[in-house]
Amino acid sequence: MLLPELREQICEANKALVPSGLVRLTWGNVSGIDRASGLWGIKPSGVDYAELTPEDIVLVDLEGEVVEGTLRPSSDTKTHLHLYREFAEIGGITHTHSLHATMFSQAGRELPCYGTTHADHFHGTVPVVRALTPKEVESDYEHYTGVAIVERLRELKLSPLEMPAVLQLHHAPFTFGKHAMDSVNNSIALEMCASMALGSLTLNAGMQPIPAHILQKHHLRKHGPNAYYGQGKH
Amino acid sequence: MLLPELREQICEANKALVPSGLVRLTWGNVSGIDRASGLWGIKPSGVDYAELTPEDIVLVDLEGEVVEGTLRPSSDTKTHLHLYREFAEIGGITHTHSLHATMFSQAGRELPCYGTTHADHFHGTVPVVRALTPKEVESDYEHYTGVAIVERLRELKLSPLEMPAVLQLHHAPFTFGKHAMDSVNNSIALEMCASMALGSLTLNAGMQPIPAHILQKHHLRKHGPNAYYGQGKH
Amino acid sequence: MLLPELREQICEANKALVPSGLVRLTWGNVSGIDRASGLWGIKPSGVDYAELTPEDIVLVDLEGEVVEGTLRPSSDTKTHLHLYREFAEIGGITHTHSLHATMFSQAGRELPCYGTTHADHFHGTVPVVRALTPKEVESDYEHYTGVAIVERLRELKLSPLEMPAVLQLHHAPFTFGKHAMDSVNNSIALEMCASMALGSLTLNAGMQPIPAHILQKHHLRKHGPNAYYGQGKH
Amino acid sequence: MLLPELREQICEANKALVPSGLVRLTWGNVSGIDRASGLWGIKPSGVDYAELTPEDIVLVDLEGEVVEGTLRPSSDTKTHLHLYREFAEIGGITHTHSLHATMFSQAGRELPCYGTTHADHFHGTVPVVRALTPKEVESDYEHYTGVAIVERLRELKLSPLEMPAVLQLHHAPFTFGKHAMDSVNNSIALEMCASMALGSLTLNAGMQPIPAHILQKHHLRKHGPNAYYGQGKH
Repeated sequence: MLLPELREQICEANKALVPSGLVRLTWGNVSGIDRASGLWGIKPSGVDYAELTPEDIVLVDLEGEVVEGTLRPSSDTKTHLHLYREFAEIGGITHTHSLHATMFSQAGRELPCYGTTHADHFHGTVPVVRALTPKEVESDYEHYTGVAIVERLRELKLSPLEMPAVLQLHHAPFTFGKHAMDSVNNSIALEMCASMALGSLTLNAGMQPIPAHILQKHHLRKHGPNAYYGQGKH
Repeated sequence: MLLPELREQICEANKALVPSGLVRLTWGNVSGIDRASGLWGIKPSGVDYAELTPEDIVLVDLEGEVVEGTLRPSSDTKTHLHLYREFAEIGGITHTHSLHATMFSQAGRELPCYGTTHADHFHGTVPVVRALTPKEVESDYEHYTGVAIVERLRELKLSPLEMPAVLQLHHAPFTFGKHAMDSVNNSIALEMCASMALGSLTLNAGMQPIPAHILQKHHLRKHGPNAYYGQGKH
Repeated sequence: MLLPELREQICEANKALVPSGLVRLTWGNVSGIDRASGLWGIKPSGVDYAELTPEDIVLVDLEGEVVEGTLRPSSDTKTHLHLYREFAEIGGITHTHSLHATMFSQAGRELPCYGTTHADHFHGTVPVVRALTPKEVESDYEHYTGVAIVERLRELKLSPLEMPAVLQLHHAPFTFGKHAMDSVNNSIALEMCASMALGSLTLNAGMQPIPAHILQKHHLRKHGPNAYYGQGKH
Repeated sequence: MLLPELREQICEANKALVPSGLVRLTWGNVSGIDRASGLWGIKPSGVDYAELTPEDIVLVDLEGEVVEGTLRPSSDTKTHLHLYREFAEIGGITHTHSLHATMFSQAGRELPCYGTTHADHFHGTVPVVRALTPKEVESDYEHYTGVAIVERLRELKLSPLEMPAVLQLHHAPFTFGKHAMDSVNNSIALEMCASMALGSLTLNAGMQPIPAHILQKHHLRKHGPNAYYGQGKH
């Protein structure tokens, strides 16, 4: 069996969705890529997290062909494929319908940086990605979901590791990361920040984003060459 | 003992209400039907989910007569009976007082399709069912609850598997499904969608339902002859 | 040791507060009474629920004297005492600072019957009990808390088993029951109804209480001589 | 290994953050001090709570020098250091990004005493601490965080055990206590009070703080020479 360690990581990351509270039923999937081989793995469609094993992970290449796996891959596979092709720096992707992030997606409201919790993970406002057109939906829904995400981050000149989250209008969030579990952690952070923002806006409807010098400081404590958070092993 | 497999399924579906967070105390019941024999089973009234066994499930026929069982069936039995008689396509029914769906029921607000989470399960707006009249309440409360539900779906020309949920005014939701656990899953989905809608409406009071082409797409990914979600075994 | 069964019931009812989500830290206490002997038991003050044993329950008489027990009884003992003296029909009392019921207490808003979940447990609007005066607080705070509760229910001509809950202004709820665990169940129901009401009011600020015929029906399904909910053993 | 009991207490207090619901990921840290030796310990940066052992706790002196420990201390170490130097009466400090307290921090809203739950722990309004200036952030962010906290409590003439919590603007809460676990308990109480306040304000936007005589009474039931809550062993 190819890439047993990658399969293990992806399986573990998918299973982490349940205790994290990010998913109900089977509404969520995580993938991860091995850039050396160009192969990536994703959760099979509609399979319970509790029953998922590393062998169930479906391996796909960067042309979208299933390389190894007997189960049908996630229905969102073409979205992940496009993101891996266009964002060379990412190693993992998580898609969930987590409660509060989805509230912002549905409401079509971007998520400004209202505090350091947000700054620690997302360098500025988490953007909303436009709805797909009827033509896009009809011809290749999941592919164009990826296209619209890439288009939006490029438009805003944001790199996917500086801004590892988007909110798709009418739908739900996607997050990215250095590897599968890192993208799950960004989904956890996004959900928390969305929940905090909803409450803060209730308390102060005119609330402004945090000052740039605090955003910058908190982000650089955790990211980049001068990071000093953690034990120095990322 | 008749229909041991059906009893097992109904028991398991009732027990699933607790970890799903849909019920507190004994506020919820699930039933399931075997169309071949015309027999259906339901939770006994007021029994703790933790102590429920397949033998406790009360079997009833389509005339409403208890066929097998020593316990008193759920006080909502006549509601389930009417739904099984009128909706030949359903195989399971769940009634809970789940938190957010009940907020909508109490407020008398229908639940429009505000996102793909909703579209995946409910083909459009989840309707509110009218309150019963004093006369209906007095003569046969639980029976007329079923009557009002059937009346409402027919009025809206909705099939109960396309729209497997209703919100009864002043009361709480009922959901349907292909079998007992499927109706529980629709209750889980309804609760999640109601919670998301409450948050989204707080963020954007003028929010509109999602465009028809996205509703259609998401619903047909999961339902009908061209569904491509899951492993093809429903 | 006196009344081992009562001690067991009170201990179990106190321990049920934690998994029910009604308490954090040590903010809650349950008591129960044996009317035959006129002795009642209550949680000792500030003791962790996890470590509580039936032997820790402090037995008190209806004059307020500790009859058996080495620990100091709950700081709210005099409130419970007054309620047992004045309300001969109750067998258990629960006091918590449960989240949503406390929101209503703090806001000084009574809790009207907005749905059948409420009607199943509380026969009408759950009342707010006035704040104590500086003089009452100074002379005997916990005693006058009980006095104000009794005064309020009498003023409204409500019996404590028909309306087994009050919201004390600036403070938190008290609930009553036929026995210790029954009062805990009423606290669970009150918390759920308060949470539902908060959400329903957000969705429909002008919401009206449910019609009298539905309140009556739901209450009498569960209470009184014509109740038909449950297995007939209360 | 120095101070094994202190290490044990600090480890246990950090681990208590997870079941308390106060932290997600690694967003929180607890420290505790041994005033006799002037040594204090803190969680190492970015380490999972589940894996934390007493040996991992990093011991630091009151000059900020690491005395014992192989891991890098929390990135917030200098904040804790300044608080221990300036507030001789405190024995423990907790910093989390707990959901509702952080909503108030982000919104820049202080938390008035809206009920007895609050009065039991915090003697009046929990204050907001100002944002740091660009210069402070650049020169020594974590040190000036401590400076701003001390400055704010002194300005308000509040002692850190009477008011063992602050809300840092754009950021999150810090709480204090007599020892490590006491500061965690204050974080739990703060989170609960913030959550209750948000709900109460939704129900009654013009709500006023509780009367002084009730605040005083509840606080003094639990604190100071005339406290009569608990078993008399604090």
